[in-house]
Amino acid sequence: MSEFDLIRRHFTRPTPSAMLGVGDDAALFQVSDGNVLAVSSDMLVSGTHFFPDADPYWLGHKTLAVNLSDMAAMGAVPRWATLAIALPSVDEAWLSAFSAGFFALAQQHKVALIGGDTTRGALNLCVTIFGEVPQNKALRRAGAQVGDEIWVSGCLGDAALALAHLQQRIALTEAEFAAVASALHQPQPRVALGLALRGIAHSALDISDGLLGDLAHILEASQVGATVELASIPVSETLRSLTYNTLTPSPSPEGEGSDAGGRGALLQQCVLSGGDDYELCFTAPLYHHADVVHRARKVGVAVTRIGHIVAGQGCVVRDAAGKIITGGNNGYDHFK
Amino acid sequence: MSEFDLIRRHFTRPTPSAMLGVGDDAALFQVSDGNVLAVSSDMLVSGTHFFPDADPYWLGHKTLAVNLSDMAAMGAVPRWATLAIALPSVDEAWLSAFSAGFFALAQQHKVALIGGDTTRGALNLCVTIFGEVPQNKALRRAGAQVGDEIWVSGCLGDAALALAHLQQRIALTEAEFAAVASALHQPQPRVALGLALRGIAHSALDISDGLLGDLAHILEASQVGATVELASIPVSETLRSLTYNTLTPSPSPEGEGSDAGGRGALLQQCVLSGGDDYELCFTAPLYHHADVVHRARKVGVAVTRIGHIVAGQGCVVRDAAGKIITGGNNGYDHFK
Repeated sequence: MSEFDLIRRHFTRPTPSAMLGVGDDAALFQVSDGNVLAVSSDMLVSGTHFFPDADPYWLGHKTLAVNLSDMAAMGAVPRWATLAIALPSVDEAWLSAFSAGFFALAQQHKVALIGGDTTRGALNLCVTIFGEVPQNKALRRAGAQVGDEIWVSGCLGDAALALAHLQQRIALTEAEFAAVASALHQPQPRVALGLALRGIAHSALDISDGLLGDLAHILEASQVGATVELASIPVSETLRSLTYNTLTPSPSPEGEGSDAGGRGALLQQCVLSGGDDYELCFTAPLYHHADVVHRARKVGVAVTRIGHIVAGQGCVVRDAAGKIITGGNNGYDHFK
Repeated sequence: MSEFDLIRRHFTRPTPSAMLGVGDDAALFQVSDGNVLAVSSDMLVSGTHFFPDADPYWLGHKTLAVNLSDMAAMGAVPRWATLAIALPSVDEAWLSAFSAGFFALAQQHKVALIGGDTTRGALNLCVTIFGEVPQNKALRRAGAQVGDEIWVSGCLGDAALALAHLQQRIALTEAEFAAVASALHQPQPRVALGLALRGIAHSALDISDGLLGDLAHILEASQVGATVELASIPVSETLRSLTYNTLTPSPSPEGEGSDAGGRGALLQQCVLSGGDDYELCFTAPLYHHADVVHRARKVGVAVTRIGHIVAGQGCVVRDAAGKIITGGNNGYDHFK
């Protein structure tokens, strides 16, 4: 199969929203009147972002999902995408499953794949996504104000917990792993929530590198500080039960004590600094509290208030007793 | 150095042409009235597109140049770009030189780097470029008409010849290599020519995979055929002198005969199927012949008529005696 057959067979679908799609030197499209273009690129590298044997269908899903998540975080409507892909070899079954996963999510969000590149090399997936947002309606990182409530969508920590299991840093039961693995492999970008927050959120981003690390971007861009209550951070039933078990003295403490302590620290790190959640973190003024809850409910996404914006800089996390927790690693950094 | 320091230090420059540049979930910009957006992605992989020890300054140049070339081929004004980059490790000197080469060319074309991604992995560079073109003015691959003249800019084959030398498939003298290496390492995207051809070219593309392979895309998209005269294809003095030497009987034929034949075939392949030239190939009606020459001269780029479009399909190449040459490999294909 030639490079062009590969593109035709796996990566060419009708693109009615573009004037010109896959197959020329560039794609052509028009931004709707009154809108500006929101653009973001995310690169996924085998061995860094996913295991080489990752299920290709869900890898296709995730490759687009992480980019959709950036549109969600801007309050933009995703419309078009390009996909550049380096492949070590042509594997028909892999390509077929990958493109099926990619296009299933694309169709769900009415995103058109309008171009890209295919080349030989270590497996590498680079999507650039294009969305539309009315002028001055984008949700930026800068804009958080003292007194704003800090919110997150969904639950945090499951993706990092699933990864920790796969990396054998923690041992989950089969049922526990099954319950948290979808957060890692099948993230659901919060596009509808991002759109619903236009006009009421002061700032927003998506949590790709971990809550504390990403929240720090909002704080830095907005030149404010934050207080977060650990107990308020929403976690899944699975993660909560593990935390509970870890914090409850074991019947035979001499054998499990230190392990439980390590496990507790790991779980806390998953929640505070675990990457790959792709939930939104946003701030909104107190007087919009009810409206935030109402709008989130309307789009079917749980949101939870986890703290508030204060004057100063940096983020302080407090436990249920009000004691300050030092967060340790603040988030995922590819070069640290 | 953290990922964010790296971005700040090496890849963040003022972006007055965008509402929001590097540092948020997405960049924001507005397309000028009456224009549509032209978008293209190109991925460069170490070991496939460049040698791992490539000069980082010129690699930075080339990474952007191959994308600018796609804008040139569309007749679009390049405006913005994103850069996603996977790095095996942080090498300050390398990054400094790479970004200097990238930004030098970006400034020359007034292109703003508005976003991207940095991650750890095998060296991989993925640029997405955004240009503007007035509605209905883009130079597409479809549009060639029977009777059109076929033109190319610059000289063909030097980049492939330099690569053949580096791969030890041919031995050039130091002076010969120096004369052709710039085509491989420092390609000059023909942006001004692309703009000058708006309104008179019927079809256009850039020659990245080799003349015959790329021309075949125009023919297929336009559902026409072509006749090309080998002797008309513009080549550099260096390549011409090598061809001449190869075709002239050697004083000691017994030692060089077969080598000369292999060399002649290699040189012909460089010209007809050599990739990485990034010259434009375009078709325009005969009655625009003088205008094509005039407009190209105005932007300081040589253009040469190499054949014409005929009814039917496929491309026939004839030598000076009118004999049909079978082209062999039609162009570079990453998966063939």
